[in-house]
Amino acid sequence: MELLALGEFNLINLITRDLATNPSEVVKGVGDDAAVLKVSPNKWLLFTTDMLIEEVHFSLSWASFFQVGAKAITVNVSDIAAMGGQPTHSVVSLGLPERLSVENIEELYAGLCQAALDYNINIVGGDVTKSPAPLIINVALLGLVEPEHVVYRSGAQPGNLIYVTGCLGKSAAGLYLYQHPEVQVSEYARRLVCNAFLCPRAQSKAGRLLGESKVVSAMEDISDGLLGELARICQASKVGCRIRLKDVPVAEEARLIASLAKNDPFKWALSGGEDFELVFTVAPHDTIKIQETLNRAGVRYHLIGEIVSAAQGMTVELPDRTLLLVPFEGYDHFTCKEKL
Amino acid sequence: MELLALGEFNLINLITRDLATNPSEVVKGVGDDAAVLKVSPNKWLLFTTDMLIEEVHFSLSWASFFQVGAKAITVNVSDIAAMGGQPTHSVVSLGLPERLSVENIEELYAGLCQAALDYNINIVGGDVTKSPAPLIINVALLGLVEPEHVVYRSGAQPGNLIYVTGCLGKSAAGLYLYQHPEVQVSEYARRLVCNAFLCPRAQSKAGRLLGESKVVSAMEDISDGLLGELARICQASKVGCRIRLKDVPVAEEARLIASLAKNDPFKWALSGGEDFELVFTVAPHDTIKIQETLNRAGVRYHLIGEIVSAAQGMTVELPDRTLLLVPFEGYDHFTCKEKL
Repeated sequence: MELLALGEFNLINLITRDLATNPSEVVKGVGDDAAVLKVSPNKWLLFTTDMLIEEVHFSLSWASFFQVGAKAITVNVSDIAAMGGQPTHSVVSLGLPERLSVENIEELYAGLCQAALDYNINIVGGDVTKSPAPLIINVALLGLVEPEHVVYRSGAQPGNLIYVTGCLGKSAAGLYLYQHPEVQVSEYARRLVCNAFLCPRAQSKAGRLLGESKVVSAMEDISDGLLGELARICQASKVGCRIRLKDVPVAEEARLIASLAKNDPFKWALSGGEDFELVFTVAPHDTIKIQETLNRAGVRYHLIGEIVSAAQGMTVELPDRTLLLVPFEGYDHFTCKEKL
Repeated sequence: MELLALGEFNLINLITRDLATNPSEVVKGVGDDAAVLKVSPNKWLLFTTDMLIEEVHFSLSWASFFQVGAKAITVNVSDIAAMGGQPTHSVVSLGLPERLSVENIEELYAGLCQAALDYNINIVGGDVTKSPAPLIINVALLGLVEPEHVVYRSGAQPGNLIYVTGCLGKSAAGLYLYQHPEVQVSEYARRLVCNAFLCPRAQSKAGRLLGESKVVSAMEDISDGLLGELARICQASKVGCRIRLKDVPVAEEARLIASLAKNDPFKWALSGGEDFELVFTVAPHDTIKIQETLNRAGVRYHLIGEIVSAAQGMTVELPDRTLLLVPFEGYDHFTCKEKL
């Protein structure tokens, strides 16, 4: 069977279906943003990895080497944040095409180091090898979390409220501007969305605070689009969800660029990917605690809908109150054609 | 500056020169086979990673998908073994070209899983993405080691004896046969050296026993050739070494194939790489203990030379007692042309 026909998530399910792990050491293996390991008695270890490949995840005609390096760390930090954890140590593998200069690689590594510094991570090792064509960066990242603070994607229950941090759609708008340089827009808006696309920030502090609150029932980072991440929460939690489109926070600049480009900003916000905000669920009686926690830390958040029964599926309520049933699929590295 | 001119080890030194790590958490960062982290009070965590790229580290015209998957785990296990540790958990990133079928990837993953089973490792997560051309496999591996059992490359002292496990040169002989299919050799010898090249085994048990002995002063796994690994020990320990060529254990089949191919088997044994045996150093009064430990476990080993002062450099004593001074460089992914 061809890869394209199967798609990423089905492929992962297929190849990992027989994976056996030792339950005395592995709290959670494949199937969340990071694995959860019982290595220390009081703190659990989180373990995640992400590979960035040139012309799949980034283009050097848009991004600087520094930005690519920083992003390779950030996407992994975002996975640790989605578990409620604190990132700690990473190893970095570089596949380097011979066309790069030593100065290019120093700049790449400077980006890795700056992001590591920003998130208080130690880069402790790695591998360097040549690559026949694309630049390849693989980061594996460890994190720590107290057993009572870890948040999985599988704990959402019908009646829970769904929140997102920040605003969505900026990264997709940035990608759109690179793909359509003819769009005329203010330098400020261009820089803002292009920065969101090339130099995203992970919600590391917010993830940690949400874990420490002990009342978040499920959480994901929004790397593959809001609907894609909600689908993961719904499938893992065996629930459905209802999102009110009017409450989905679309970044002002994304709205502006979408209107200039005659595009739908909600499409960017719902399916655009790489916003690296957090989507999480909370029981109604716990929302005051969450709001106080996030307000105190200056983290913006929006209530966008609620968890329903699995039978009701995943729906988006349009402004005229009609319900749109959404299939459980988000951005897919193999089947989606819109991204890089 | 061009990458080729600099070389792998100089590049690593350059890009990691300013890496700062937190000494309360990081016992050893960049600069050994694996990082050593203080995560648990009684056991230290080892953390390593290796990236395999098609047509750089393997060719699918020689190796099966299963073999490539197994080797991706093995090369990392070998790094944990060289620290005296026990491998425990891994995450696997796959960069998959669209030309592969789902069956190819299932076979690749079966190889990863088989090796994980062989070494008692849990595969707990990973990343799957598409690759524009080469198949890419990155494994990051954790291991555990008691603080008193960890072995660095930096502890060798003048007067220490140098040992290797097993025999060397088989992997290089296997590579040679794939590159020169015209060489006529018995099916048995061909299979043995080709297996050593395509399905190497890591000396996981031997590494652990050597760590537990508490008397090994320095250790490396032989992934980049015996001389390359000895150079690392010498540079990290600020010593030199003298190897007696006649005592370097060359595998019988490598000798046979070298003689048929009119090649030098010692070149394969000294610089061939990918034998995944261990080279280690021990003070003379501790050799009895090491010999008893390895004999009891059925691990073969050979005494090949001794550590000398840094001023004496790295030398190979030829059978006629002349000394050959060897520069401190082994197999280099950027500058070496002989490998794949």
